[in-house]
Amino acid sequence: MYPKNTWYVACTPDEILDKPLGRQICGEKIVFYRGPENQVAALEDFCPHRGAPLSLGTVRDGQLTCGYHGLVMGCEGKVVSMPQQRVGGFPCIRRFPVVERYGFIWVWPGEPSLADAAQIPHLAWAVSPEWAYGGGRYHINCDYRLMIDNLMDLTHETYVHGSSIGQKEIDEAPVNTRLEGESVVTSRFMNNIMPPPFWRQALRGNGLADDVPVDRWQICHFTAPSHIMIEVGVAHAGQGGHAADPSVKVSSIVVDFITPETTTSHWYFWGMARNFKPEDTALTAAIREGQGNIFNEDREMLERQQMNLLAHPERRLLMLNIDAGGVRARRILDAHISAENAAENTPPA
Amino acid sequence: MYPKNTWYVACTPDEILDKPLGRQICGEKIVFYRGPENQVAALEDFCPHRGAPLSLGTVRDGQLTCGYHGLVMGCEGKVVSMPQQRVGGFPCIRRFPVVERYGFIWVWPGEPSLADAAQIPHLAWAVSPEWAYGGGRYHINCDYRLMIDNLMDLTHETYVHGSSIGQKEIDEAPVNTRLEGESVVTSRFMNNIMPPPFWRQALRGNGLADDVPVDRWQICHFTAPSHIMIEVGVAHAGQGGHAADPSVKVSSIVVDFITPETTTSHWYFWGMARNFKPEDTALTAAIREGQGNIFNEDREMLERQQMNLLAHPERRLLMLNIDAGGVRARRILDAHISAENAAENTPPA
Amino acid sequence: MYPKNTWYVACTPDEILDKPLGRQICGEKIVFYRGPENQVAALEDFCPHRGAPLSLGTVRDGQLTCGYHGLVMGCEGKVVSMPQQRVGGFPCIRRFPVVERYGFIWVWPGEPSLADAAQIPHLAWAVSPEWAYGGGRYHINCDYRLMIDNLMDLTHETYVHGSSIGQKEIDEAPVNTRLEGESVVTSRFMNNIMPPPFWRQALRGNGLADDVPVDRWQICHFTAPSHIMIEVGVAHAGQGGHAADPSVKVSSIVVDFITPETTTSHWYFWGMARNFKPEDTALTAAIREGQGNIFNEDREMLERQQMNLLAHPERRLLMLNIDAGGVRARRILDAHISAENAAENTPPA
Repeated sequence: MYPKNTWYVACTPDEILDKPLGRQICGEKIVFYRGPENQVAALEDFCPHRGAPLSLGTVRDGQLTCGYHGLVMGCEGKVVSMPQQRVGGFPCIRRFPVVERYGFIWVWPGEPSLADAAQIPHLAWAVSPEWAYGGGRYHINCDYRLMIDNLMDLTHETYVHGSSIGQKEIDEAPVNTRLEGESVVTSRFMNNIMPPPFWRQALRGNGLADDVPVDRWQICHFTAPSHIMIEVGVAHAGQGGHAADPSVKVSSIVVDFITPETTTSHWYFWGMARNFKPEDTALTAAIREGQGNIFNEDREMLERQQMNLLAHPERRLLMLNIDAGGVRARRILDAHISAENAAENTPPA
Repeated sequence: MYPKNTWYVACTPDEILDKPLGRQICGEKIVFYRGPENQVAALEDFCPHRGAPLSLGTVRDGQLTCGYHGLVMGCEGKVVSMPQQRVGGFPCIRRFPVVERYGFIWVWPGEPSLADAAQIPHLAWAVSPEWAYGGGRYHINCDYRLMIDNLMDLTHETYVHGSSIGQKEIDEAPVNTRLEGESVVTSRFMNNIMPPPFWRQALRGNGLADDVPVDRWQICHFTAPSHIMIEVGVAHAGQGGHAADPSVKVSSIVVDFITPETTTSHWYFWGMARNFKPEDTALTAAIREGQGNIFNEDREMLERQQMNLLAHPERRLLMLNIDAGGVRARRILDAHISAENAAENTPPA
Repeated sequence: MYPKNTWYVACTPDEILDKPLGRQICGEKIVFYRGPENQVAALEDFCPHRGAPLSLGTVRDGQLTCGYHGLVMGCEGKVVSMPQQRVGGFPCIRRFPVVERYGFIWVWPGEPSLADAAQIPHLAWAVSPEWAYGGGRYHINCDYRLMIDNLMDLTHETYVHGSSIGQKEIDEAPVNTRLEGESVVTSRFMNNIMPPPFWRQALRGNGLADDVPVDRWQICHFTAPSHIMIEVGVAHAGQGGHAADPSVKVSSIVVDFITPETTTSHWYFWGMARNFKPEDTALTAAIREGQGNIFNEDREMLERQQMNLLAHPERRLLMLNIDAGGVRARRILDAHISAENAAENTPPA
């Protein structure tokens, strides 16, 4: 239920600092490590000698050595050497296309010949000194599409995140969903409302009054397979809202990369990119902590929702206007998956 | 393996004080809460919008609101409202007949049209100021019928509860099992024996000598589906035993409601009703603690017995005279279940 | 995937000191206890009355009493008595041939009529005052044959046990595997090398210089079903190695009994027998602790290897020269298993 010929965020550089990382992505058990010249490599996590996971091995000078009997594996999946053995005839293991970019390690779990690094989305905020980024990672036991639904319908903030970013006015503002090329965009604008606690803190952090009405916006951008960037912010009311001058607003981008592990679990990479006070690392840390707490509030709901859906496979869910973002995102995913299946079943000409 | 057209104890009022309770009963995931006018309501624990469990929601003024996107559910399973939505066409969810009585919430997990509150057993001790009640709840991983067997054959007290209520003389006293209308009654009388620790404490608590011989009795009353009331007590020997004057005896009713969760797990509501010193709340608490410890001793035996039976489905168990209570109770249950199955398979006339 | 008509180590005497022990062996749930005259008994862990595990019962004067309702079971699997019951017609339960010898309890999980105590391997070190033994027990979640592979290819010491017994020279020394009657013997000799930490400590413990080159040896002896004795040691270099005079060497036997629990889990009984300073109990304890730490390092590798193999049943593993010990051991096991299957399927003449 996920496309495989596409790029997913697999991990972050801090996860492969001094030893290999084993992680399952789209059902594939993969080992990630820094190979020759510090380039990230991704291989099947299976030693061809006796089936040990290579992720329990060691890396030295870009060489991955199996931690069981010392087989040395090359970054293309071909065995390099093994003590006292001739390895020429040893079977190879799968290698996965992998790219380090924008502070993330991206992996292509499908057919390697189709991988094109140019398809990795451009993240302007990740390469600009005017922006700062902080984020984290959660393992969530639900279908990655339930997380897409969650993020494409922010109505839930009123209920799940009532003490931080939720407020009743979210419910009352109309929501608009449209396709923009390959993106699904869902937006909501709430004018002349009082800011909720998270945004009051952000206003203060940016030196702005926090006890006055604001115009608030949420613009969710989905692109396949599961990248969601949400423009969020508040401006002092009546100054143009989303388009207001930076001196009267505070805004940022909620960054979400959602990577299927199995059909009912995923890795959730979350964070926030902001273009105010980018040099303030204490602020980055404070925002990261607050955001981590907020996103953790979704976990129980999502995991229990998953259990309910597994128990009731026959039930059809509603698709309201507020669900349109998730529904359209799924249509795009379904088209990707169908195209992959068709390609797999087409005999070569 | 359980009847569904019958009343089970679902929970106690303290479990639905300020938020809804999700509990699985006879395979049905149900949310319990206090609806309009403080009446208890029981619904399928499944929001028709996106499948979230309603038990993660909130209750205010008798309204149950889904904690994900704010759908408001009515106590009959019909959607009341949802922010910015017209809900007239929304699908309904199942409601379960539910009654609050005798300090318990009773639920009917089967066909609602058959539910008749008059079938809830009458509990005289629960409505009399001369009686006091204290109890608790355990989750046990075994078929609820193994718990019925356990309570209808108190021989096990000698072995499982040797330090409190067990004593060798239980084994040696003959047991009698008979049908009384719809009840199975198993009784055992042990005359002129020394009281075990639990009963010595009770004698002292009632101002009676505890170092003299007593006549002891155990009279287990089973009624379908899984209610077991056990008259227990001791009287100073030779004064009439069960029929002796209250001034020379101490007696109570062990109260057991056993509610299937799945075919191999159940909720066990246990307690003790007594008609001496009913105003003594410290005594109630002390008895409750002692009883909780005793009933916890059965857990490992029951759960390991269940695992053994699952591993050996081909083994037939013995049905001795001491097992007659459980055997007869199962026959009554089997008849209920057969009748339900027959009714389900009968086309309407 | 294991022979059943053979002797396995089931437990050690300290595990049945004051109550019965329940343990699953080759898929059979068995209760072990000391019966009449202190003889060890092994029975199906299933009370014929109601299926309770007999291992939750009690033992007094060699009588095993079920902890649920007091059935008394005889050591041959025939019911002895039960309070107020005539037990003549009660069904029997299986008894398993069991022998206490060499400080271990040995069980025969297969056909009892074939059991012959003379087939228990002779352990000379266990009956000689010149030897001391210390050991322990681990539960490991993998096929017992992966542990056989592990112990018959000590190349892994370099990688898994790098801080204690591993050293690079193991890799570089040729390995030799041969059949000796019913045994598989894999040996490796490393001459004129510096001793690793574990052996330096042992040299010091035996009053020998630890900062000089040594000749080191490892001789693994496998016998069916899963007993592996490994002669290990170091001698000051050039004095004859394995054959050197005891005054210039330190040596011992690594003792491994590997008992299948299920097809993907086993009980691992490990220890070390040594013939120097046998009276030094502090040394025994120190060696035992060090060895326990070392063998615990294998656990994660073995359990993760098992998971990888379960996930990839189609992958064929390599069988290199270093794997020859495990490969030959498996051939012997396969022959045993085939013979058992053939015998089971042969109709009596």
